[in-house]
Amino acid sequence: MIRFECDYAEGAHPLIMQQLIDTNEEQTPGYGVDSYCDKAREYIKAKCEHDDIDVHFLVGGTQTNLTVIASTLRPYQGVIAAESGHINGHETGAIEATGHKVLTIPSTDGKIRADQIDKICIEHKEDGSREHLVQPAMVYISFPTETGTIYSRKELLEIKQVCEEHGIPLFLDGARMGYGLASPQNDVTLKDITDCCDVFYIGGTKVGALFGEAVVIKNESLKKDFRYCMKQRGGLLAKGRLLGIQFETLFEENLYFDIAKHAVDLALMIRKAFEEKGYEFLYDSTTNQQFPIIPNEKLEVLEKNYCFTFWGKIDENKCAIRICTSWATKKENVEKLIQDINKL
Amino acid sequence: MIRFECDYAEGAHPLIMQQLIDTNEEQTPGYGVDSYCDKAREYIKAKCEHDDIDVHFLVGGTQTNLTVIASTLRPYQGVIAAESGHINGHETGAIEATGHKVLTIPSTDGKIRADQIDKICIEHKEDGSREHLVQPAMVYISFPTETGTIYSRKELLEIKQVCEEHGIPLFLDGARMGYGLASPQNDVTLKDITDCCDVFYIGGTKVGALFGEAVVIKNESLKKDFRYCMKQRGGLLAKGRLLGIQFETLFEENLYFDIAKHAVDLALMIRKAFEEKGYEFLYDSTTNQQFPIIPNEKLEVLEKNYCFTFWGKIDENKCAIRICTSWATKKENVEKLIQDINKL
Amino acid sequence: MIRFECDYAEGAHPLIMQQLIDTNEEQTPGYGVDSYCDKAREYIKAKCEHDDIDVHFLVGGTQTNLTVIASTLRPYQGVIAAESGHINGHETGAIEATGHKVLTIPSTDGKIRADQIDKICIEHKEDGSREHLVQPAMVYISFPTETGTIYSRKELLEIKQVCEEHGIPLFLDGARMGYGLASPQNDVTLKDITDCCDVFYIGGTKVGALFGEAVVIKNESLKKDFRYCMKQRGGLLAKGRLLGIQFETLFEENLYFDIAKHAVDLALMIRKAFEEKGYEFLYDSTTNQQFPIIPNEKLEVLEKNYCFTFWGKIDENKCAIRICTSWATKKENVEKLIQDINKL
Amino acid sequence: MIRFECDYAEGAHPLIMQQLIDTNEEQTPGYGVDSYCDKAREYIKAKCEHDDIDVHFLVGGTQTNLTVIASTLRPYQGVIAAESGHINGHETGAIEATGHKVLTIPSTDGKIRADQIDKICIEHKEDGSREHLVQPAMVYISFPTETGTIYSRKELLEIKQVCEEHGIPLFLDGARMGYGLASPQNDVTLKDITDCCDVFYIGGTKVGALFGEAVVIKNESLKKDFRYCMKQRGGLLAKGRLLGIQFETLFEENLYFDIAKHAVDLALMIRKAFEEKGYEFLYDSTTNQQFPIIPNEKLEVLEKNYCFTFWGKIDENKCAIRICTSWATKKENVEKLIQDINKL
Repeated sequence: MIRFECDYAEGAHPLIMQQLIDTNEEQTPGYGVDSYCDKAREYIKAKCEHDDIDVHFLVGGTQTNLTVIASTLRPYQGVIAAESGHINGHETGAIEATGHKVLTIPSTDGKIRADQIDKICIEHKEDGSREHLVQPAMVYISFPTETGTIYSRKELLEIKQVCEEHGIPLFLDGARMGYGLASPQNDVTLKDITDCCDVFYIGGTKVGALFGEAVVIKNESLKKDFRYCMKQRGGLLAKGRLLGIQFETLFEENLYFDIAKHAVDLALMIRKAFEEKGYEFLYDSTTNQQFPIIPNEKLEVLEKNYCFTFWGKIDENKCAIRICTSWATKKENVEKLIQDINKL
Repeated sequence: MIRFECDYAEGAHPLIMQQLIDTNEEQTPGYGVDSYCDKAREYIKAKCEHDDIDVHFLVGGTQTNLTVIASTLRPYQGVIAAESGHINGHETGAIEATGHKVLTIPSTDGKIRADQIDKICIEHKEDGSREHLVQPAMVYISFPTETGTIYSRKELLEIKQVCEEHGIPLFLDGARMGYGLASPQNDVTLKDITDCCDVFYIGGTKVGALFGEAVVIKNESLKKDFRYCMKQRGGLLAKGRLLGIQFETLFEENLYFDIAKHAVDLALMIRKAFEEKGYEFLYDSTTNQQFPIIPNEKLEVLEKNYCFTFWGKIDENKCAIRICTSWATKKENVEKLIQDINKL
Repeated sequence: MIRFECDYAEGAHPLIMQQLIDTNEEQTPGYGVDSYCDKAREYIKAKCEHDDIDVHFLVGGTQTNLTVIASTLRPYQGVIAAESGHINGHETGAIEATGHKVLTIPSTDGKIRADQIDKICIEHKEDGSREHLVQPAMVYISFPTETGTIYSRKELLEIKQVCEEHGIPLFLDGARMGYGLASPQNDVTLKDITDCCDVFYIGGTKVGALFGEAVVIKNESLKKDFRYCMKQRGGLLAKGRLLGIQFETLFEENLYFDIAKHAVDLALMIRKAFEEKGYEFLYDSTTNQQFPIIPNEKLEVLEKNYCFTFWGKIDENKCAIRICTSWATKKENVEKLIQDINKL
Repeated sequence: MIRFECDYAEGAHPLIMQQLIDTNEEQTPGYGVDSYCDKAREYIKAKCEHDDIDVHFLVGGTQTNLTVIASTLRPYQGVIAAESGHINGHETGAIEATGHKVLTIPSTDGKIRADQIDKICIEHKEDGSREHLVQPAMVYISFPTETGTIYSRKELLEIKQVCEEHGIPLFLDGARMGYGLASPQNDVTLKDITDCCDVFYIGGTKVGALFGEAVVIKNESLKKDFRYCMKQRGGLLAKGRLLGIQFETLFEENLYFDIAKHAVDLALMIRKAFEEKGYEFLYDSTTNQQFPIIPNEKLEVLEKNYCFTFWGKIDENKCAIRICTSWATKKENVEKLIQDINKL
């Protein structure tokens, strides 16, 4: 069985494993103040082309989302997100468990637009009994989105502008950031993201690391006491250097970007195979997640040898699935899948 | 200026005020264990035709909603409600502040249907990664709804049945219960509500009391330690007898029902006046709230002498308003308004 | 049975009841933006001799404490209080339910000292792993304390100073403030309290009102969006004018202070009776709560006609009780009690 | 510089690292439902000599404590712990952030006794206004404690009994469990712990793993939906197998116990050296943490070559430090330290 159902099926990139072995016996201080974390911070700052940012390392995405959001909002404030946003539908109410409402915006492609954000903020401000409403006080977007789509530079800048107009910070969930940056459709750099966002994170778990997310805080007012928030939410890893070592390895050179490109290249090969077969897609993704719509009997054939994620029934005869590649996907497995798609 | 914008513009029914005066110098124990509260409990049990219910008194609706819901749910569970439900949109995220997500169901008339509840519960159970989703574990409905509509007995029974099938309790927000029961369209009794719900409350604030909501808990498993929850949320009134005295007065005889009927009768007179003028309504309400759609220039005329609540712009020329009557609304004021409607 | 076990056994001062009757049929906007609340605000500002303060009205003490504290702290911050502080031991963990730790300081008389606050703040700052500790970020004191004692002007100024040195706001719980101000031992004015505190409240529930606490916010940074916090915690009373009317009545002239003096005078008469009998006291209170230590068999005699609060066993033969007077205590009842004390 | 300041200065045991390398390219399902986790569960069940237990894997101790406790308690309930308990003083209020109070018991050696638990429960039950108090509903103990001491089998059984009498579950924090079991003073087995506790965890982070804590739930009523709680708190590791692989390696044979014994043997050698020098100890620990009291000028000498944790000033001339050994501590480093102690 070959697994294409997610991008966290394997361990870590061999260079990371090697580095973990090489440093295993060293003694370092705990909780992320070691030299490996410091080096990783320097490398990330360089790639972001920003010096005045704080970089913290957490273990997973839900942990990161809840820590960042709870650290930012006052009790009566909420975070704006697409209805399809990970924090809204797939984190067991982690944000609500910290006391905050997710204010949802409808979206067909996983993205939200500046004018939608503007509208919700204006409606709140103009409401005569606004103290009875949750105050919108942060915007959450994901890059790429949960459906594989990406924001253009222009879209990001528009969102940044409307956030500034309303005085609310912009938070970008980059759990799969590498795969977004590697999309042939992408015109955004890590510097652009840093320019546009008040806080964001660079996902490691799904892009080459055993685990780990690097939070980048640019907005001064969000920097204060962030380590307290990490500890309180159970997110301050005792052997913090494990995170430092992984991000150091990913960002010292271009490893993070190279392995993400590998995954996207393979995903687009699979996409092409489905397209040539005349299949349609649920979302127009140019990243590592593809959502083909497949006749049920054809899917049954493929599922004999491959694992996918069921994504939704389209009608009696067809359903949509998610196919993920990752930094670890083997080219021969993709070629085998393509052959089998061709045979359908 | 005559106020029709809400049903809490005046004080309390004169009989309540008199009873508060008459008992003012008496000494009673605090926190709701006095004889007035006990008598009020007995009267409410009699009207509900259930002996095995617990009755507690709280001060306001938001307080009641958050106390009941937080008392019921485990941390990862959420409460199902109409998108237009008061807990979803008009309580500043009070439910989320206790850690729980409101799982919304779309609704055009403020009501939700049994099949919608069924669907959300089944979807949750069938989801392969259901631990990543908020578990639906309570259903919240309001009677009447925020838009003045009411559930029929049949609808309530269907909802009760689907709740039982999924093993989740049904909670009914009766902030305006009296006005629902008094609707000519209504076929539900207080006994029916008690039969159908695991927990509900009878609103006093909007129906004759200075303040106060009577929570009725029928489900055994929800009764335990409810007073701890009340105290923790700041809802255990020191001079608890104030609540007892008010509900005793409302429920000793039929005062609660009589004054609610007064309000509904007047509201329907206003409705008829608008109908005869050919105006449409945003919602089909037969309770004390009416939502006529009025041309802007006509509204301007009326607003010289009356206060309404702006409810939403319909188009460039028209908007919807809310007109409320209450137990305290004076017939002569309604007649004056009707004359002015006729003149429009 | 004559009740001396608490200061909330009766209703409200007759002038308040009269004013509630007189205004009962008036129509006012809801949620505390009516003219009665505004007038009450003006009177309170005048008594505080501060113009630049915000005044909000809540219903009860626990509600007020949790709303003020949760409104002030970031998630990882805690509030310093005496171990005997109401928020620590008698509010069912209401503060913790909003996510915050109460950082306790031992106290034998209910008061905490500036040097104790200083110590806890310094210890936190000097701790090498301070992110693992709750950050002290507010100081809570009560005036008078839960044991009837009061802070001197000098003590308050010292606490204010140490709070400023550490940049943390001072919050004073004045649930029984009137009785503290009326103590013959007191050298503090309402202006002094306003000068010293960032936020405090003037208790109405225990001092003449049916219910109600007036929150005074002096610190600019704590003023923002406080009404959202009130609504979220269920503390924005629909018929907000009920609070306005009560505080207007209490503070238009000197009613609040006069009725508090009445209670304290009577309490000190009782104290004197016990002293002359040679009884000792658990706390050295000069306010409306007295804590005599009484031989068990004598207590049994008194309890035939009077209710007290049991406060603690001293030894096999003696226990401490709490005796409360209030604005409503009748002088003849006190005289009767004193006669019975003399007879012991 | 040789580090003795904590037991998480190094990576993981070489056998774990090897296993991580060997399995790195395998594809497994995420979130802890893979075969490695299943095997680890079987090995742990065997060591606990209980079949009817649930085993879950989390990343760190604070995360585990907050997830277990928040999963167990209703909102108004609190957890009893020693004042020195990790959840009380060193987790940035993580428990309070989930809404619950830590009810502390004074302790000089880090342990609490059955009679202390009994007392707090009885006091609560007998209190006339118990709804105003946090309800004690879980007992938290650590084994070994934060000060290196351990409970005897008799003490554990007494605590178990009192917990059962009051119907509240017992939770044991075993972040350093291995080092407790390896103490020459210990008479407790993993089976005893499983017999006595409703829920506990076996610490991996400090005993040979890169990270990871294995939660064992024996009490049926605590098992339900625990994975939802894990996900909500950000504790469901995407590549869950990483935890499975580590605990599989530690518990397949006796690795966990053997490496813990190594650490304790070395710690006791250090202890002996200090004892022979006539130094006293702050706590009477026979586990991997030692707390010698050292004259300031002697400490300065040692600190030229070794890192310790400062634990507290004893007087002007002396202070207490913490010296930790671990599974990774090198015998030659300990011998070097002992030589240097002898030279003091």
